[in-house]
Amino acid sequence: MSALHPFDPVSPGEITLATKILEAAFPNTALRYKKIDIQEPIKAEVIPYIEAERLGNPLPPKPTRVLQVLFHRIDTGAFFKALLNADKKSVIYATELPKEIQGPVDTDELIAIEQLCLAHPAVQAEVAKLQLPPGVTVCNDPWIYGCDDPKESRRLFQCYMYIVSTDHPQNNHYSVPCKFSPVFDGLTHELVRMDYLPSGLDAATTETQPWKPVETIQYAHDLLTESLRTDLKPYIVQQPQGPSFNVQGNKIYWQKWCFRVGFNSREGLVIHDLNYDGRSVFYRLSVSEMTVPYGDPRAPFHRKQAFDVGDLGFGITANQLSLGCDCLGHIKYFDGYRCDSKGNPVLLQNVICLHEQDNGLQHKHTNYRSGAATVVRNRQLVVQMICTVANYEYIFAFIFDQAANIELEIRATGILSTVPFDNEVFGTTVPWGTNVGPGVMAPYHQHMFSFRMDPAIDGHKNTVYYQESVPLPEDENNPYLVGYTTEETIVKTSSAADTSVERHRVFKIRNDKHINPITYKPVAYKLMASPSQMLLASPISFGHQRAVFATKPIWVTKYRDDELYAGGEFTNQSKSSTGVEKWVARQENIENEDLVLWHTFGLTHNPRIEDFPVMPVERVSVMLKPDGFFTKNPALDVPPSTQVLNKSTLHHEAACCSVGGNKL
Amino acid sequence: MSALHPFDPVSPGEITLATKILEAAFPNTALRYKKIDIQEPIKAEVIPYIEAERLGNPLPPKPTRVLQVLFHRIDTGAFFKALLNADKKSVIYATELPKEIQGPVDTDELIAIEQLCLAHPAVQAEVAKLQLPPGVTVCNDPWIYGCDDPKESRRLFQCYMYIVSTDHPQNNHYSVPCKFSPVFDGLTHELVRMDYLPSGLDAATTETQPWKPVETIQYAHDLLTESLRTDLKPYIVQQPQGPSFNVQGNKIYWQKWCFRVGFNSREGLVIHDLNYDGRSVFYRLSVSEMTVPYGDPRAPFHRKQAFDVGDLGFGITANQLSLGCDCLGHIKYFDGYRCDSKGNPVLLQNVICLHEQDNGLQHKHTNYRSGAATVVRNRQLVVQMICTVANYEYIFAFIFDQAANIELEIRATGILSTVPFDNEVFGTTVPWGTNVGPGVMAPYHQHMFSFRMDPAIDGHKNTVYYQESVPLPEDENNPYLVGYTTEETIVKTSSAADTSVERHRVFKIRNDKHINPITYKPVAYKLMASPSQMLLASPISFGHQRAVFATKPIWVTKYRDDELYAGGEFTNQSKSSTGVEKWVARQENIENEDLVLWHTFGLTHNPRIEDFPVMPVERVSVMLKPDGFFTKNPALDVPPSTQVLNKSTLHHEAACCSVGGNKL
Repeated sequence: MSALHPFDPVSPGEITLATKILEAAFPNTALRYKKIDIQEPIKAEVIPYIEAERLGNPLPPKPTRVLQVLFHRIDTGAFFKALLNADKKSVIYATELPKEIQGPVDTDELIAIEQLCLAHPAVQAEVAKLQLPPGVTVCNDPWIYGCDDPKESRRLFQCYMYIVSTDHPQNNHYSVPCKFSPVFDGLTHELVRMDYLPSGLDAATTETQPWKPVETIQYAHDLLTESLRTDLKPYIVQQPQGPSFNVQGNKIYWQKWCFRVGFNSREGLVIHDLNYDGRSVFYRLSVSEMTVPYGDPRAPFHRKQAFDVGDLGFGITANQLSLGCDCLGHIKYFDGYRCDSKGNPVLLQNVICLHEQDNGLQHKHTNYRSGAATVVRNRQLVVQMICTVANYEYIFAFIFDQAANIELEIRATGILSTVPFDNEVFGTTVPWGTNVGPGVMAPYHQHMFSFRMDPAIDGHKNTVYYQESVPLPEDENNPYLVGYTTEETIVKTSSAADTSVERHRVFKIRNDKHINPITYKPVAYKLMASPSQMLLASPISFGHQRAVFATKPIWVTKYRDDELYAGGEFTNQSKSSTGVEKWVARQENIENEDLVLWHTFGLTHNPRIEDFPVMPVERVSVMLKPDGFFTKNPALDVPPSTQVLNKSTLHHEAACCSVGGNKL
Repeated sequence: MSALHPFDPVSPGEITLATKILEAAFPNTALRYKKIDIQEPIKAEVIPYIEAERLGNPLPPKPTRVLQVLFHRIDTGAFFKALLNADKKSVIYATELPKEIQGPVDTDELIAIEQLCLAHPAVQAEVAKLQLPPGVTVCNDPWIYGCDDPKESRRLFQCYMYIVSTDHPQNNHYSVPCKFSPVFDGLTHELVRMDYLPSGLDAATTETQPWKPVETIQYAHDLLTESLRTDLKPYIVQQPQGPSFNVQGNKIYWQKWCFRVGFNSREGLVIHDLNYDGRSVFYRLSVSEMTVPYGDPRAPFHRKQAFDVGDLGFGITANQLSLGCDCLGHIKYFDGYRCDSKGNPVLLQNVICLHEQDNGLQHKHTNYRSGAATVVRNRQLVVQMICTVANYEYIFAFIFDQAANIELEIRATGILSTVPFDNEVFGTTVPWGTNVGPGVMAPYHQHMFSFRMDPAIDGHKNTVYYQESVPLPEDENNPYLVGYTTEETIVKTSSAADTSVERHRVFKIRNDKHINPITYKPVAYKLMASPSQMLLASPISFGHQRAVFATKPIWVTKYRDDELYAGGEFTNQSKSSTGVEKWVARQENIENEDLVLWHTFGLTHNPRIEDFPVMPVERVSVMLKPDGFFTKNPALDVPPSTQVLNKSTLHHEAACCSVGGNKL
């Protein structure tokens, strides 16, 4: 039996083992590996194990570690999914998937397509027409193809091409998009078509013309025309006694919280088995999917709809972080592993970081009579992953605090996906995008995230309900007409639901069997949702059909193993989604059951020019807060904030004026 | 002429001057002072002065400093408002206000009523009936009376009484509310009525009975029954080269921002004359009003509707802050002054603090081909005030960043306003509140804030419009049905407006005369609003009539001097409001005019038991972001984040396990 915990990420040894098992299963057959990862354990098998851990009881046998492998046969191109028993070193199944199913893009494939594109004679012929000056070349971002044809079953890549100077590794090619875009077959490597991109006010395209040089809007410090600010003074976080967390493998202990940091190639960071003060709270938390549909209606831009989790994966796109750049203070890093196309393990170093931060005050009260004050600061634990999905960056952080709150914070940054636009004539604009530089426009788009919450509020049988705040009836019990109350609606069967700002609708997860001894209500956590505009694409468009999860903010499903991804297992070039909308359609009883709550939220991102050439973070946040889970504020026992510990320094005006470098 | 700047807060010398001027104007008449403060300068007079400052031109004469005084004649009780010319040392006017107008509560008055209540024989008779044991006494919070009678013109206080032990200055009396509540006339000091409070499931009241001791739910560290956490390690912010800000009096320079910190007894912290890189952005920012209506329908609780700005004032309730408790790092404090009832100046030390904070990453991009990354951290400047309004605390912070964003962050903390409730029988609950301890219930309520934004986007004539994201028509220009666009609606005449999550409605302020050279659209800032449930009280209730500003999230008015407070000038015991709803009713043209944008937002706060006995912060935030104000990300020139400056430390697992104090 494996020494690894059921929730531990795949190990390099397991990746090697998987290739060995499959080599034996497919003798004399060359395989091209796409993904070798740990399969999420079967919940019923793992619960006895983690419950014994939580209660300090003797541990039952570990559940089998199962590996999931996606691969192609090189001879036939057929696409397979296999599950392997890592303990028994055996194949559970290895199934050829239907031809229309496309697996996600993998790292080696992305590099191969990029190089294929640059080397292709048809592309080189177009580049020749540009008549680029010395020191200037082209590069390309291979894009997942999206979908506009129900009969398409080839594995396709749309390469968006850019003009870039060769003198610096951070030249911003997104500032100079080309007007041609080849489409390749990812398996045969054939050029399928050379698309030409509209660059005017309508869908009209033109043949490739010699390039008229324009200024590149640069983001890298070396390449800026302006000088850097000189008046920003250092800001250092010191933790002289070290951090307040303890780490044992992937298990984290911090301020009454205990959980496991998971990592996989698809979702990247996952939180498993989250407990507070010995009580179970959530079984699993993850960002299960996201989609980024673009609003530019013109071909081929209508196919720009990335599913960054399903089409690619946050694990394989996670940045390998370095000390001092992304976090302050005392930092613990976690590594991950992926496979390459040959099935070799590849180390993904420092893809998750863990650190504490101070977030101002957590609670304060001053007795105005005595002047005596109680002040407690809000120390937080941040588990973070930063993903680069071609142009965009997403910073995902699960943030835990001492009042038993859980926050999922997402910061969108990076570079806008741009298109060519002939905007040199004053006033030239399109109604679906923003000019961000000479010859370049950033189309409107949406970023829609799906937060998957698998609750275990004092146990695995929970109930989701929503509470609305409504005026009391205007009757004799409300004579002054100021009274208001709350109405509760239990989500009895699996279904979707809307948010409502007007009614202050709040979704809660409770355990009907555990009654709070003071409120007399079931213990619960509430979701502080982020009400957002839902998907704008027409209901009959592929953009909508492929991402039904993004058309409703709330979904509640009955738990089933293997239902992890809101948009379904295979999103790349999908014609329609096979996710939450299918699972709620079972209309199962979910009252006092093992259920999953999914929250879709995001940004309608109509770019500001200030979002270019690199975007100041756009922050979205959802929180899970205890609501009757405790009998009082659980952070009361956090020691007070004092100058003895904090060592703050006092500003004296005279000293400042002599020290400061600012204009005065 | 005064040496003070037009926007400087009132000085102690001006307070003394005001009393001298009024003594001369009212010879042989004893006056009781309520407020002596600086009057907001007349905008038309101050603009030439601050424009000369901004442009570095020779300064014109300063506008007259005008003092505003509220006072009572002791002989007649008549209530006056006076404006005084501080330069000429003369009275501009001193007007007796109508009898039904009540001024705000002042500090001396609050203390006097509290003492009056405790000393009153009728109150002492009720206390005697409680038969309190030794070491236990009563205290009271005098509450503004609210309104339920259009004919009431007395100045009234409702004293809510609590049982409290005398052995510690932070005993939590809010945990043990009494069931009687005397009402006093604030001018005559007469007992108007002894109210008895409902404590069951309906409005029924009972005579005062001997007190049955219950556990007090304590918040102070000394009084906790549990021991404090021992595993929280120090977290120190070091700024070895000092801060990045410079302060000259009340003028702040930080990272291309320049503004003046204002302070007055009513709004407390105000931001004046906000400029970025020499361009004007906002003339004035403030939290202009807030109201906290309670949802318990039963008398006398129906009158609980605090207007914390107008009834009392954030300036006079601002905490006097101390180093190391409320902020980390290098901190500058600002003092304020108020008058006492005799007109003497009273120093309010350290009521505003200024410091920098690190808020994670501001932008990042990794070129996935080269691996080269650009990382810039998000340094912020925080100007903060913490107000204790009896039980509640509000932490107000204006936060500026290097990407020219402005955030108003409000954190609600402190203690819930509680009522007695006989909840010892299991299952006893009310539909408008939460049991938070034995014998104590916290009613539902709302916290509604009004953020007043007086814009100066590249000048004082601006236009407010809103933009919505909508699908493109399903026609030949949108053949794939995924296109979407934005629709703009100009707010042409002063009016109220709704937010809309569904349509992603975004309100923007632009300058029609300044066109961005790349986007070809007018320069603008956008409001990242906080869509919130509006006031729940019935439209025909006093609770609604007094707080019409809290019934719509957006108001846009044409600027007029003296229109500063969303609920009107005098809110205490008001019968109806005289604020934004009156000013929009003028239906003035506000396109390309001097206008004011008001945003109402807040919390429907149905207490969690975790909010007791002191509430973990509930955070609400609105932001103002440049939107086409610049030609690219204005934070590009912020130096990169590097380990050389940040001096982060790496976590080694072994070291942790031996150092940590956590359970393992």
